Amino acid sequence: MTSPVIVLVRPQLGENIGKAARAMLNFGLTELRLVAPRDGWPNPAAGPAASGADAVLDGARLFDDVAAAIADLGHVYAATVRPRGMAKPVVTPEQAVREMRAAGGRSGILFGAERSGLDNDEVALADSILTIPVNPAFSSLNLAQAVIIAAYEWHKAGAVVPPRRETRGGPPASKADYQGLYAQLEEALEARGYFRSAARKPVQIRSLRTLLQNARLTAQEIRTLRGVIKTLTWPPKP
Amino acid sequence: MTSPVIVLVRPQLGENIGKAARAMLNFGLTELRLVAPRDGWPNPAAGPAASGADAVLDGARLFDDVAAAIADLGHVYAATVRPRGMAKPVVTPEQAVREMRAAGGRSGILFGAERSGLDNDEVALADSILTIPVNPAFSSLNLAQAVIIAAYEWHKAGAVVPPRRETRGGPPASKADYQGLYAQLEEALEARGYFRSAARKPVQIRSLRTLLQNARLTAQEIRTLRGVIKTLTWPPKP
Repeated sequence: MTSPVIVLVRPQLGENIGKAARAMLNFGLTELRLVAPRDGWPNPAAGPAASGADAVLDGARLFDDVAAAIADLGHVYAATVRPRGMAKPVVTPEQAVREMRAAGGRSGILFGAERSGLDNDEVALADSILTIPVNPAFSSLNLAQAVIIAAYEWHKAGAVVPPRRETRGGPPASKADYQGLYAQLEEALEARGYFRSAARKPVQIRSLRTLLQNARLTAQEIRTLRGVIKTLTWPPKP
Repeated sequence: MTSPVIVLVRPQLGENIGKAARAMLNFGLTELRLVAPRDGWPNPAAGPAASGADAVLDGARLFDDVAAAIADLGHVYAATVRPRGMAKPVVTPEQAVREMRAAGGRSGILFGAERSGLDNDEVALADSILTIPVNPAFSSLNLAQAVIIAAYEWHKAGAVVPPRRETRGGPPASKADYQGLYAQLEEALEARGYFRSAARKPVQIRSLRTLLQNARLTAQEIRTLRGVIKTLTWPPKP
């Protein structure tokens, strides 16, 4: 069972990166990715705050944007304190862990910047929203503490034999598979005037991507859809 | 249901007291007790670290020893990272929460000093040992993080969170909607030679229909897909 990747998006303080690494290792998670950390990377404040979880920091990988950071992952969760009115499943940490263990493959959890969290475009890249059910009257959760709750649930579920999802002809599609599908579809639609106006286009694209992402496709299904799209753009046979 | 009292025993840093207060309030716990804090009480470092959980700090009660701090409590747990070889029940946070909620009355959880934890005499005053199941190779858990896991489990057990989906723009598609989609897609593919042979065609159709059906589309999403298919069959604009 591959443990989930923890992706910190635009983290501000090196100290918080260190604390998140410590929280991860407390519950056996080791794979950390950083997207555009504000103060660069490596950050000298991270090590002391990690209190010995140096291996997690040393292995951290750096990315420019969320899309690149999750390109090789299957199911990806966006941790948010409250729902965003997006057409995505909203799950608790416990439910997310159950899903990740059932799906197999490599999953990831995105955590936003300390102050601002994830922006809507970043949330849109995830498959599901992971919401920690906090006290609504005091919901500001420290970054490392949000990480530790997810890590704790992952570790806790380890004792349980995971129910495997019925296989659908192979592993879940990676984010790179989805990006390829999106690019092909949107290019073909663009060439045919599908996007009515520059103002509407981002909304149309987001709803198409959401629709496809919610379908939880396998890599094989993505290949099938790409063949379908290609075929549809041909002229009819005489 | 009375929420458990959190008892910090000989806490060293005011900052950690503040963070513990914040962690408590994140999950709705409000009653904090301090036993012989090293730097006295109040401690000016606590407030900033509490990030707004001032009411918890303001209501904190000060005691000289553990016995006094727990005198009015029913079931008391001693949080430790590993068992102490004492003749006491050892429970996980989840089990402790279940017991506390079943027992009713007012329970408490003791957390030891940052560096040294609880000493054996202090553990002896508790009814049960609460052990957070951590990675045995990296078990040093930050004080506020131990508190937040206990608080999280308490809150979680109280909030029955129904799994929900955010609205996906309306009701699920009907079977008739799906039939219309299948007919349009298959006709367009047929006209373009997608189905290689009469023998393969039923298999290809079944896998396309399964893919679409598994996507659990809404009626609106079906309309979107039908528009996409129609557009794709047009020639590109010059």
